[in-house]
Amino acid sequence: MLRPVDTVALAVRGANEAFYEALEQLDMHAMTRIWTRGALDICIHPGWPPLSGWTDVQESWRAIFTNTTFMKFSISETSVQVFGDVARVTCLENIFSLSGGTRMHSQVAATNLFVLGPQGWRITLHHGSPVASRVARLPPDEADA
Amino acid sequence: MLRPVDTVALAVRGANEAFYEALEQLDMHAMTRIWTRGALDICIHPGWPPLSGWTDVQESWRAIFTNTTFMKFSISETSVQVFGDVARVTCLENIFSLSGGTRMHSQVAATNLFVLGPQGWRITLHHGSPVASRVARLPPDEADA
Repeated sequence: MLRPVDTVALAVRGANEAFYEALEQLDMHAMTRIWTRGALDICIHPGWPPLSGWTDVQESWRAIFTNTTFMKFSISETSVQVFGDVARVTCLENIFSLSGGTRMHSQVAATNLFVLGPQGWRITLHHGSPVASRVARLPPDEADA
Repeated sequence: MLRPVDTVALAVRGANEAFYEALEQLDMHAMTRIWTRGALDICIHPGWPPLSGWTDVQESWRAIFTNTTFMKFSISETSVQVFGDVARVTCLENIFSLSGGTRMHSQVAATNLFVLGPQGWRITLHHGSPVASRVARLPPDEADA
């Protein structure tokens, strides 16, 4: 039988999976439903500065969904920490995408922050950053901060 | 007179500043003091996959401090959200660094997660990702997730 803490962590993992399903299916309605849609929502896409507030965050997803043909996610190294009504997830996104006939594989390290409300766990922060393919050979300046 | 919520946000900002001071001063003792030093601490350096647990996180800071001559941080676009005993900060790190006689300027988008304990606000997650210099020209594949 699951302990309460396991049940909560499972619910958070479910919310995290729902986020990647919405992304994979390029489903703007699903993506909209799972955010808190507040003024303090934050989204940091790979290579981007932070976007702040649901209006800008939503616009960025709309642009991404419009410009993407195909994205398939395989999520690994998922780590969950629950602090009462707040939970953070970190994971590795293994992404296969198709653009202009070219198939690409990339890896993104992600931090996702969820808050528990009347509708369940909703995402309020997503931060994705590209993982270099040869991390061990990075010079110190690129490995700092 | 400050409202209680402002006082809390100020304390979180102070913890965030202490993190960057430790980093700027390459001060391993200060850096150690401000982390929760737990098994669920997470650090994602620019270009890296997540490091999990204080042992690995500490080792990464030690390596960075050993290999860095000079780093100067100017922090901008700081956004704080407090959820009781948990707080998230996002900001832009404007970094001037010196390595092998070469002066470099770079920008990193950061998410920092703090928890309130008996010793005050401690950091439990740091995620830094490089900001591309020409974000607006990124092809869709690099702008997703």
